[in-house]
Amino acid sequence: MSARNQIQVLINGQIFMISGYESDEYIQKVASYLSGKLSELQKTDGYRRLTKEKQHMVVQLNVADDYFKAKRQVETLENDVAYRDKEIFELKQQLMDLQRQLDEVKKK
Amino acid sequence: MSARNQIQVLINGQIFMISGYESDEYIQKVASYLSGKLSELQKTDGYRRLTKEKQHMVVQLNVADDYFKAKRQVETLENDVAYRDKEIFELKQQLMDLQRQLDEVKKK
Repeated sequence: MSARNQIQVLINGQIFMISGYESDEYIQKVASYLSGKLSELQKTDGYRRLTKEKQHMVVQLNVADDYFKAKRQVETLENDVAYRDKEIFELKQQLMDLQRQLDEVKKK
Repeated sequence: MSARNQIQVLINGQIFMISGYESDEYIQKVASYLSGKLSELQKTDGYRRLTKEKQHMVVQLNVADDYFKAKRQVETLENDVAYRDKEIFELKQQLMDLQRQLDEVKKK
């Protein structure tokens, strides 16, 4: 892991000091995603009517929802990879089999 | 999309009323993930020393970090699938080629 990084980010008009092991670029990307999420929510009446505490909870649930959707995609893709690996294995078996047949026929 | 769902969830000892189109099971899973995240953070001195506002920001950044890590995994897996699709295509070409050779040799 690289050295701990300290970086200032702007989220929803507020400056936060963040330290982490990730690159500046990554931290800025995460901050900008959060800013976008907040300004998107602030456009809705339902969100603006909530207490600060509940607003935070809505943001957290919203981001966690994005996380779980991405995780679901990870699971689907992992299955896709496993399915293809099986197919590749079978194709290679068929190839070896055909090659053996061809060698035998040529020998005769 | 199914009908809008209203469900009570417990996050960090507080009850929240959440409505959404997702299943009860899914919403509970998201809430329980958030609860876990909060209780994990509350164990650290650094987090407990922050103002409420900053604590919320830390949670949001933390969850967003999980999201971006899952997204990165999605990108890697999408590449893995594309790579395997290319391999499958090539193996099928080789199979057809070998089959053709075998048919020709048998004809002679």
